[in-house]
Amino acid sequence: MSSKEVFRPTCIIGLGLIGGSLLRDVAARGATVYGFNRSTSGVRAAIKEGFDVSDDLVATLQRAAADEALIVIAVPMHAVGDILDAIKEHAPNCGFTDVVSVKAEVLRLVKDRGLEAHYVGSHPMAGTADSGWNHSHTGLFKQAAWAIAFDYAVENEDPGKFWIEVFTDVTKLIQLAGAEAIPVEVANHDAAVARVSHLPHVLAEALAVVGDNGGILAQSLAASSFKDGTRVAGTSPALVRQMCETNSAALVDVLDEALILLADARDNLAADPADISYLADAGYRARTRLNARSGAHKNSVSPVKISSRPVLRLKPGAYGWVSTLKQAESLGGRIEVY
Amino acid sequence: MSSKEVFRPTCIIGLGLIGGSLLRDVAARGATVYGFNRSTSGVRAAIKEGFDVSDDLVATLQRAAADEALIVIAVPMHAVGDILDAIKEHAPNCGFTDVVSVKAEVLRLVKDRGLEAHYVGSHPMAGTADSGWNHSHTGLFKQAAWAIAFDYAVENEDPGKFWIEVFTDVTKLIQLAGAEAIPVEVANHDAAVARVSHLPHVLAEALAVVGDNGGILAQSLAASSFKDGTRVAGTSPALVRQMCETNSAALVDVLDEALILLADARDNLAADPADISYLADAGYRARTRLNARSGAHKNSVSPVKISSRPVLRLKPGAYGWVSTLKQAESLGGRIEVY
Repeated sequence: MSSKEVFRPTCIIGLGLIGGSLLRDVAARGATVYGFNRSTSGVRAAIKEGFDVSDDLVATLQRAAADEALIVIAVPMHAVGDILDAIKEHAPNCGFTDVVSVKAEVLRLVKDRGLEAHYVGSHPMAGTADSGWNHSHTGLFKQAAWAIAFDYAVENEDPGKFWIEVFTDVTKLIQLAGAEAIPVEVANHDAAVARVSHLPHVLAEALAVVGDNGGILAQSLAASSFKDGTRVAGTSPALVRQMCETNSAALVDVLDEALILLADARDNLAADPADISYLADAGYRARTRLNARSGAHKNSVSPVKISSRPVLRLKPGAYGWVSTLKQAESLGGRIEVY
Repeated sequence: MSSKEVFRPTCIIGLGLIGGSLLRDVAARGATVYGFNRSTSGVRAAIKEGFDVSDDLVATLQRAAADEALIVIAVPMHAVGDILDAIKEHAPNCGFTDVVSVKAEVLRLVKDRGLEAHYVGSHPMAGTADSGWNHSHTGLFKQAAWAIAFDYAVENEDPGKFWIEVFTDVTKLIQLAGAEAIPVEVANHDAAVARVSHLPHVLAEALAVVGDNGGILAQSLAASSFKDGTRVAGTSPALVRQMCETNSAALVDVLDEALILLADARDNLAADPADISYLADAGYRARTRLNARSGAHKNSVSPVKISSRPVLRLKPGAYGWVSTLKQAESLGGRIEVY
């Protein structure tokens, strides 16, 4: 890596909403970035906009190997295994991350191939119901949480210089995209996103179906509560299946929590007198706490949005750094590396 | 009513988000409007802005009686009975409507007092998690659906000149507020709003609680799917209870539909292999239909937003008008009166 470079070259495999938006952000910061996309139409569109992309996976990975690039796997879950095989064959010297919404399953595939010393999993909490290169744009990750997994440093007393460098690079890439790096262990990540990302999708799907069952009159009377509550039901079913089915164990646990709350509410509404005070009060308190935590965003008089997440600065590999990562995880805090 | 008046004088009882916003809209159109509010601070704030409001209920209703005003009951459900008693005592000559989110229970209270020949129930599908005069503003109802109940005309072959005039006045008031009058029978209204308004609140409360159970890490990772899905959990618990408990029979039915879908999804996720394809596909199709129906709003190139609801014009009381109302109801259509 030349000292003139802003950042180690980045090679993004898969240029959909996430991969494409990251390519745009990194390029906008003046760093070297190139990528591969399976769909030729996406590649043509990106080249037309002046980006350095290709539909030749092997050539792209060989280039990454020559550059000692950081590789970002940004393909759907079902394609991750094949990409790992290709990295092992064509770019075995590179560090890499992925942006899949579930981390245990990807880590399992990585370990199956013995690549874990080169891998730091990550997950940007950003995205919309839209997908594909055509929806990608700069700024998608601005102040978003971006989880970064550190299990390898917990499992290995000395994770080694190479892995520590990959961890550092991934953290810097997250910052380059304007996001906030939140360190998490894989199991904690998957349990948390089951609650705050996968369960919202399942509830939105159910609400959309029940609303639709009411026919055209109910739809005509639907207002913002229904539209907000069903927005993510517009996500492609393939993507929803990938997220939910790959994280099924954690999702079943939180669905059970929700089912107990809803069945209790149902019984209390069917009682005489009907009484939904428990759920109404508990939900309001929970939502109020959420608002209070993200309050700095809204109430700041400064035009610069201030993060509501505490920041912990650390030097990867330095004495006690894993404790600092665990502390940040327990606070939902973000890290900065130096 | 003087022929110089734009509209029959309107008397609004209760100046919270809905009543206050309606007062502003009617005043902005140059029509005579005045109101009552129980809270003195709300009254002071409204007077300071130049509105004609009072904290004396009896005097306000006596004025309405002298004016032959249309009275709008815009108080919470639990206060409706007392207001009906006061109308019966102080303004028994006036027609009136209400804006409560549940219609069967209000109709029962009206019938208990023998006031049904003067009453046309209604319900604007507008509002936010905020409440009170301080959040009221003009334009809240712009292109919103506003349900208007016509059961009395179904139950009485000749509903009489007075009731027909109240129905006409309420329809015109809805148009004056920029909203779209959707005719509904009370039972159909309550079943529809259970699906598209009350169920979204219950699901949002449950999601907020389950998300909050994940603690600070889960909250830090929460992004737009969680925030959208929990937005209406910020509604005051008292208002949620009023809506849900007063419409408990219809809400229990749709909660049962949701519980079946969610329990099935849970079992399919717990199976090997995990499979959530049924709900993901059904939810996506339902949401896509909803988008298609409201498509005219988004896709129109005209700066004037075009309603996606079919319009039926009718003359209240004319031969066949009740059939036209039923036709509009079955289409989720809006009516215009002449």
